[in-house]
Amino acid sequence: MWDVAEELKAMLVFAEHRYYGESLPFGDSSFKDSRHLNFLTSEQALADFAELIKHLKRTIPGAENQPVIAIGGSYGGMLAAWFRMKYPHMVVGALAASAPIWQFEDLVPCGVFMKIVTTDFRKSGPHCSESIRRSWDAINRLSSTGSGLQWLSEAFHLCSPLTSEDIQHLKDWISETWVNLAMVDYPYASNFLQPLPAWPIKVVCQYLKNPNVSDLLLLQNIFQALNVYYNYSGQAKCLNISETATGSLGTLGWSYQACTEVVMPFCTNGVDDMFEPHSWNLKELSDDCFQQWGVRPRPSWITTMYGGKNISSHTNIVFSNGELDPWSGGGVTKDITDTLVAVTISEGAHHLDLRAKNALDPTSVLLARSLEVRHMKNWIRDFYDSVGKQH
Amino acid sequence: MWDVAEELKAMLVFAEHRYYGESLPFGDSSFKDSRHLNFLTSEQALADFAELIKHLKRTIPGAENQPVIAIGGSYGGMLAAWFRMKYPHMVVGALAASAPIWQFEDLVPCGVFMKIVTTDFRKSGPHCSESIRRSWDAINRLSSTGSGLQWLSEAFHLCSPLTSEDIQHLKDWISETWVNLAMVDYPYASNFLQPLPAWPIKVVCQYLKNPNVSDLLLLQNIFQALNVYYNYSGQAKCLNISETATGSLGTLGWSYQACTEVVMPFCTNGVDDMFEPHSWNLKELSDDCFQQWGVRPRPSWITTMYGGKNISSHTNIVFSNGELDPWSGGGVTKDITDTLVAVTISEGAHHLDLRAKNALDPTSVLLARSLEVRHMKNWIRDFYDSVGKQH
Repeated sequence: MWDVAEELKAMLVFAEHRYYGESLPFGDSSFKDSRHLNFLTSEQALADFAELIKHLKRTIPGAENQPVIAIGGSYGGMLAAWFRMKYPHMVVGALAASAPIWQFEDLVPCGVFMKIVTTDFRKSGPHCSESIRRSWDAINRLSSTGSGLQWLSEAFHLCSPLTSEDIQHLKDWISETWVNLAMVDYPYASNFLQPLPAWPIKVVCQYLKNPNVSDLLLLQNIFQALNVYYNYSGQAKCLNISETATGSLGTLGWSYQACTEVVMPFCTNGVDDMFEPHSWNLKELSDDCFQQWGVRPRPSWITTMYGGKNISSHTNIVFSNGELDPWSGGGVTKDITDTLVAVTISEGAHHLDLRAKNALDPTSVLLARSLEVRHMKNWIRDFYDSVGKQH
Repeated sequence: MWDVAEELKAMLVFAEHRYYGESLPFGDSSFKDSRHLNFLTSEQALADFAELIKHLKRTIPGAENQPVIAIGGSYGGMLAAWFRMKYPHMVVGALAASAPIWQFEDLVPCGVFMKIVTTDFRKSGPHCSESIRRSWDAINRLSSTGSGLQWLSEAFHLCSPLTSEDIQHLKDWISETWVNLAMVDYPYASNFLQPLPAWPIKVVCQYLKNPNVSDLLLLQNIFQALNVYYNYSGQAKCLNISETATGSLGTLGWSYQACTEVVMPFCTNGVDDMFEPHSWNLKELSDDCFQQWGVRPRPSWITTMYGGKNISSHTNIVFSNGELDPWSGGGVTKDITDTLVAVTISEGAHHLDLRAKNALDPTSVLLARSLEVRHMKNWIRDFYDSVGKQH
């Protein structure tokens, strides 16, 4: 964005989403109960952006008659697309990078996400995904005895020793690590969720070449692999299974949103993916949400509000997706119309296109960025053309 | 609508707007305070319609894959247009009849509404608008004495005798009567706000041919004119200046909406219109609203939300307006694009086109209806074409 802003002589504005970072409408009480959380919805966030744009246009000299483009990645990309859909009078277009606007209800198969994660590992080293697939049963076998639990705690260098109740949590934590690696499988060293080397899954997979070994050896290899993600710096004294990312991405706010509007069905079957089979269970989610927040999810609302797959009457949205990114499974990866277009980045992970340019950028992301800029220029040109016609 | 539904083999659904009629979310407490009224917004009403359509499609056999068209008049017309703008995946198009979507902020001059009322009276009989213009000073002169007040109370057959504090209210009531007559100046006897004869303003103006008479005679004529509106049936024993329409149009709900989102600036200057000069006073409205509801209006919000004049990226909306209708001043009366079209009814008052067909319908409304149906058929055809392409 910094690079393109300069090329387009644009001002960049980063709007902080309400209930994230410092934008807490009720200060420390913002997450106290569902009454205080009532104002945390995507619709309210979009309305904030509308008010912000009006405010900036009113107060910044020269801004009044300038075209605006919405840009975002991930949930921010969903918001960018939705903003253009709901407030087309405010922005001439939107770049929705890695925006899984279809990861709702049954718009895409619930297994597609983990299938893409698995493909990333399968393609990043021989027997890599197979080693991971076999690791779950190895953990299950070891965790059935006290000595096994102790061995696991030590082998994984965990900060707290495992009890048998922790095993599901341990496996979830490991799964989320593989998922996160798939999201940040960038072609150069980076620090999005964790400091990581270039193509981190390839590095991880160097430890996972042989699935046909004993449980102990397999899990020692798994630890080496996890260590790439959690201890690339070499500074970590132990691994903490209650954390999967450094810094705060606003987990509280997201947990509430996932319990209300943003209900994304995920599932695994262990065949098309390398994970233990787990079906999508709305009832379980609903009960957990009720316990944590006193609310129950409305799984159909996002589709009702934003149209699901039926969005062809909108215009001027570029949906970009990296083929390595598991979120691409819920994204728009085929053109819908001439002005609702999909850009695919074959060597891209989660919104690689939004990152600053890098000498190691693959051709596919360079091409994507140049396509995106071409669309932006078209939107801006059309905007000035229509302004000209009015006078 | 009944006629067209039959032609299109359509189901007609009348959705009652929340906080109106029997749709009271908190029963008798719905209007108790601003906390209970918090859910009375146009956005929430649109969301209701979205949920209703989904519900009907899910539960009515054969409805699932049928195209839906939004239809409404007046505020309902605004909602129809806004619904197509915000939920284009739910309706293939909208007929927005007499929908003053631009009667906000400075999108149109605040005086246009009363100017159209005045034109209706000026064209409906010689010296008619001039008689009304002169009546205000006559009332002011008479009301300066006790005997004058008494005379006025008797001459107007008022249910309660006037005090000097009532005079502004009396004039507002008379003004609103002329406004209402302009809205329902239909070519045949009707009963929308009151039972009335055909072309009621012509009937009214028969009493207002001579402005050059004494105050007493002028005001006796004004009474005869008012009597056409309030006592066409001949049953009224007296006139009640706290009522301008029979039955309930939901004045409480509307008063709250006018104090929050639906802030419509009106003004008069006594030159371009036949009313006493009155400028638009947001401060006064805001204070009144705060006193009545504990809320203050947000005059820019509707424009922020629905785009004001910048709506050209939307499609498939017909805006119809009657030239006799004062609300046409805030309506869309020129085509915006090929699919955002204006239909003008030269002899039409407030959403005449939505009324059942009548032998006395002027050609202009017959033409309008046939245009509207042609657009509806196009939307439906395009819908089936696009469905066909997907399979």
